[in-house]
Amino acid sequence: MLAQTTLEEFTDRLAAGTPTPGGGSAAALSGALSAALLQMVSDLTIGREAYEAHGEAVRSVRGKAAALRKDLLALVDRDAQAYDGVVQARRLPKGTPGEKEARAAALARANLFATETPMAIAEHCAALIPLAVELAYKGNVNAVSDVGSAALLAYAGLRAGVMNVRVNLAGIADADRASRARERVRRLEVDAEKLREEALGAVFSRMSGR
Amino acid sequence: MLAQTTLEEFTDRLAAGTPTPGGGSAAALSGALSAALLQMVSDLTIGREAYEAHGEAVRSVRGKAAALRKDLLALVDRDAQAYDGVVQARRLPKGTPGEKEARAAALARANLFATETPMAIAEHCAALIPLAVELAYKGNVNAVSDVGSAALLAYAGLRAGVMNVRVNLAGIADADRASRARERVRRLEVDAEKLREEALGAVFSRMSGR
Repeated sequence: MLAQTTLEEFTDRLAAGTPTPGGGSAAALSGALSAALLQMVSDLTIGREAYEAHGEAVRSVRGKAAALRKDLLALVDRDAQAYDGVVQARRLPKGTPGEKEARAAALARANLFATETPMAIAEHCAALIPLAVELAYKGNVNAVSDVGSAALLAYAGLRAGVMNVRVNLAGIADADRASRARERVRRLEVDAEKLREEALGAVFSRMSGR
Repeated sequence: MLAQTTLEEFTDRLAAGTPTPGGGSAAALSGALSAALLQMVSDLTIGREAYEAHGEAVRSVRGKAAALRKDLLALVDRDAQAYDGVVQARRLPKGTPGEKEARAAALARANLFATETPMAIAEHCAALIPLAVELAYKGNVNAVSDVGSAALLAYAGLRAGVMNVRVNLAGIADADRASRARERVRRLEVDAEKLREEALGAVFSRMSGR
């Protein structure tokens, strides 16, 4: 389990000249860091008198961020497994027509899984950004720069996830499915960029007003 | 040492409702992930016949990425220590005029360190982006999406680092120093955004040409 490796070991394994873990796992971890920061800021806000009016909203943000963090940490491993599947399918024998057919089917399945995993990473990172927007307005002002960092890390995780969706879509046979996935990630990117700007705008305005 | 905690422990500590580790440490880790990906892509390029012409350039990129990764991993810890210093200085007694003076001096020193550390994080992340540009053109095309992920993660680390520079600059007494730091981080952000766009443009063009 990559989640049980140390930061040093994980970056060593990421740096090694082997295909996994790669950009998808790094994207998922970036999302998990963002979720953790949102949880921290929530905890630095909940129960403080000055933010009493936002208590319920911030508790809800906290719960969602905690769930997304757990999933994103699991996705660090899942992305590496998904891409390992593609590498293994590529190595299947292709001597006879029967072998060729079996290899093509295995490769199609593996590529599909290798597209769905970074798509899940992108969706989870995208779900963090509205939480950052909410905390940018309602979170403890002394930790608002951490909300900004969270928005930036979620956005980077989202776009790195999308990059991995796009690269694996080339190996998908089903053109309709590929086209729907392309449309989906384009939408995620456009929406996330707007929300990231909103979060950063609110963060800067509250930082300068402290 | 945070570098020796597991991904799960580190994200737990980040999520805890305590000021450190916070956004600066997360920014440094994002940079370390970017550096690791650049090292991976270098290793997937060096020694391959198709990329022989770029061998020397890619070896140089690899060496720089490895050094930056090591520094960024150390900065994960250093940022937490730096901010702990600010928290401790704030807790110093301020009953007598002498105590007040000592506390103000300790706080000024701690704030300076808490500004210099995220500045170092931002500078290190900024130094990764030209390496991503180079690998976007010269790296193994099968791993070029990882170069894109690296550019995105370095940029997020840089901007999150800058966010932490700005928030701590408010506590710096020396106005000239603060103004120079503000100018420095503005320059880093502007330059990095241009280079990130160049890297992503080259990545997309090579991904679609595979």
